[in-house]
Amino acid sequence: MRNSLGREIPLTIEGIKKVIPYTGAFNRIPDSTKHAPLIKRRKPHIPKLLGSLDEVLEAINFKDGLSISFHHHLRNGDFVLNKILDLLASKNYKDLMLIPTALFGVHKEIIKHIHSGVITGIHGSVNGPVGREVSKGVFKRPVVLRSHGGRARAIESGDLHIDVAFIAAPSCDAYGNMNGVYGDSACGPLGYAVPDAMYADYVIAITDNLVEYPNFQISISQNYIDYVIQIDKLGDPNGIVSGTTQITRDPSRLLMAEMAAQFIDEAGILKDGCSFQTGAGGTSLAVAKFVRERMLEKNIKGAFAVGGITGEIVEMLKLGLFQKLLDVQSFDLTAVKSLRDNPNHIEMDASMYANPHNSGCVVNLLDVIILGATEIDLNFNVNVN
Amino acid sequence: MRNSLGREIPLTIEGIKKVIPYTGAFNRIPDSTKHAPLIKRRKPHIPKLLGSLDEVLEAINFKDGLSISFHHHLRNGDFVLNKILDLLASKNYKDLMLIPTALFGVHKEIIKHIHSGVITGIHGSVNGPVGREVSKGVFKRPVVLRSHGGRARAIESGDLHIDVAFIAAPSCDAYGNMNGVYGDSACGPLGYAVPDAMYADYVIAITDNLVEYPNFQISISQNYIDYVIQIDKLGDPNGIVSGTTQITRDPSRLLMAEMAAQFIDEAGILKDGCSFQTGAGGTSLAVAKFVRERMLEKNIKGAFAVGGITGEIVEMLKLGLFQKLLDVQSFDLTAVKSLRDNPNHIEMDASMYANPHNSGCVVNLLDVIILGATEIDLNFNVNVN
Repeated sequence: MRNSLGREIPLTIEGIKKVIPYTGAFNRIPDSTKHAPLIKRRKPHIPKLLGSLDEVLEAINFKDGLSISFHHHLRNGDFVLNKILDLLASKNYKDLMLIPTALFGVHKEIIKHIHSGVITGIHGSVNGPVGREVSKGVFKRPVVLRSHGGRARAIESGDLHIDVAFIAAPSCDAYGNMNGVYGDSACGPLGYAVPDAMYADYVIAITDNLVEYPNFQISISQNYIDYVIQIDKLGDPNGIVSGTTQITRDPSRLLMAEMAAQFIDEAGILKDGCSFQTGAGGTSLAVAKFVRERMLEKNIKGAFAVGGITGEIVEMLKLGLFQKLLDVQSFDLTAVKSLRDNPNHIEMDASMYANPHNSGCVVNLLDVIILGATEIDLNFNVNVN
Repeated sequence: MRNSLGREIPLTIEGIKKVIPYTGAFNRIPDSTKHAPLIKRRKPHIPKLLGSLDEVLEAINFKDGLSISFHHHLRNGDFVLNKILDLLASKNYKDLMLIPTALFGVHKEIIKHIHSGVITGIHGSVNGPVGREVSKGVFKRPVVLRSHGGRARAIESGDLHIDVAFIAAPSCDAYGNMNGVYGDSACGPLGYAVPDAMYADYVIAITDNLVEYPNFQISISQNYIDYVIQIDKLGDPNGIVSGTTQITRDPSRLLMAEMAAQFIDEAGILKDGCSFQTGAGGTSLAVAKFVRERMLEKNIKGAFAVGGITGEIVEMLKLGLFQKLLDVQSFDLTAVKSLRDNPNHIEMDASMYANPHNSGCVVNLLDVIILGATEIDLNFNVNVN
């Protein structure tokens, strides 16, 4: 079996229900229905707030072989994933499938649980040391890398089933209404965790900031949350958000950034009503800076910018260069505060952001995306790590 | 077959998949999964905004026998339901199942479409003249009355399938992000329409106030909207919201209301952290007024009130008698403006409000509900019409 790029694809892959070769962008037509999650029932006045993670594992009848999911909005400050895997390891659970939205350096602690057989598979974005470790071929089943929007698609369609979703909630009430914009562990949106909440068999909220019911804002609602537990600290604020994101000072990168901005301008993309996405890398931020200068100079009013939002993009909102921001992940404190306080800075979920199989995602409407690539070949194969 | 109240129940009912007799409050254990809606795909830059309802009907291949749903947030000012049924009748569609969240006096115009066979069944709340008409027994299949939360449950579970949901959107962008708090037809929350958006095969947004993309607030997101159309006017603002809701002046009703407030107080329910729901009827509003006086007098700080929200309840929020409002429907302009501007006035969907089969609804947590009943018997069978 070959995909549309001529690459040979195996007919079956361990752990993948059905192997479908790539046939080109937007060519795959979904031929089925969304995953149908369990219907729950909860009698009045039965609390969701349990005393410990142990009680939660007992309540949901946790067992070997389950798939467990986590979101990465706490980034390199995250304590939750390591803590829960340590607990599961201490209770001798084996053969778990890990479904993170991303992994960071801080998660290198779980490598020991990979070697001991607690984790025997990963689906999701796998950055940093865990990525390097699993690249050595430690698992029997392949690690599946999934883009943020592709992960949302896979979960919604049932291609990727989550047994238990653990959702770190920087602000949460005892019935599970949560947001990421308040509390010591504030991280911004919780958009990447929304498909997990909607489609997992069980959904556990973990918070270090239990607030009075009902919480506001509600990024993920009580409709989907089965249990709530409190822990001391979700993470290290210095790793969750950086104080400020830094524009590159490297002269050759600055030159590349300036040329990218020039290209966007001269290609006719920079005009009233335009839309724009960039990441938080030093070069991408430099592109945003040069684009900003050109928009100011020409008095261009763009429609919206999309992120991964940084202070750089928040500044463009304030200057009126964009009327709205759509945010699935905040990279710095300025972005978190802006999402909390500015109604024109709008939270979105992973499906709205980039799921190719819903009624239409935001990426569909973007004029230009700045993608910082650390390696790229002449066929535009990109490496961003 | 008998239900738990001893009433005889037919084994099969035309149009009902499976007849399950009532076995007592909270006794039914859901044994299945949620309805699995169609997976959609939309290629980049394909517009959702079509020129007319006719184009929409063609795009979705509308045909005889489908089920169509509407929400009632425009209440007695709604133009949308009548307009769409007139169009469907003019195009000779027959045998449609109507699934409204509620019907009002303004919808008496559709009685002709019932007699002509355009509509041959109704599931939903059926108030006023249409209710009286169908009570004469005009349909072959029974009309099914569903509570607001029960309707959400039925749709989520697949017991009630919607082919096409028509959603009136007082503020909407061209990609379907909508809210009910801005525009000439502002009505407040759109919470009753959320299950329709999430589970219908096709979802059509209808607006008289097309705004720049991306809209904010987003009560229902683009993820679920297939097509958007513009019409002149969604409704008559005077029927959508009343200027102010009126407390009864009838001395005997005032006495009942005062006694209800006294009962709530003396039963020990009125205390710090309490929660409260009332409707918009004159007597219910009077209960709220007397409850307010008692809370002020005793310096009681309640946690939250739930509605159907009125200016009376907004006033209690402002006075600090409740810290938050949870709102699935706004009854007057004061409530609409409060939902728009006050972060402690929170929109919720029908499932969060009252669906007995999710991970826990708001009604589960309420201390007291004031229910205005125009008739009641000694077994507490209530008539609210």
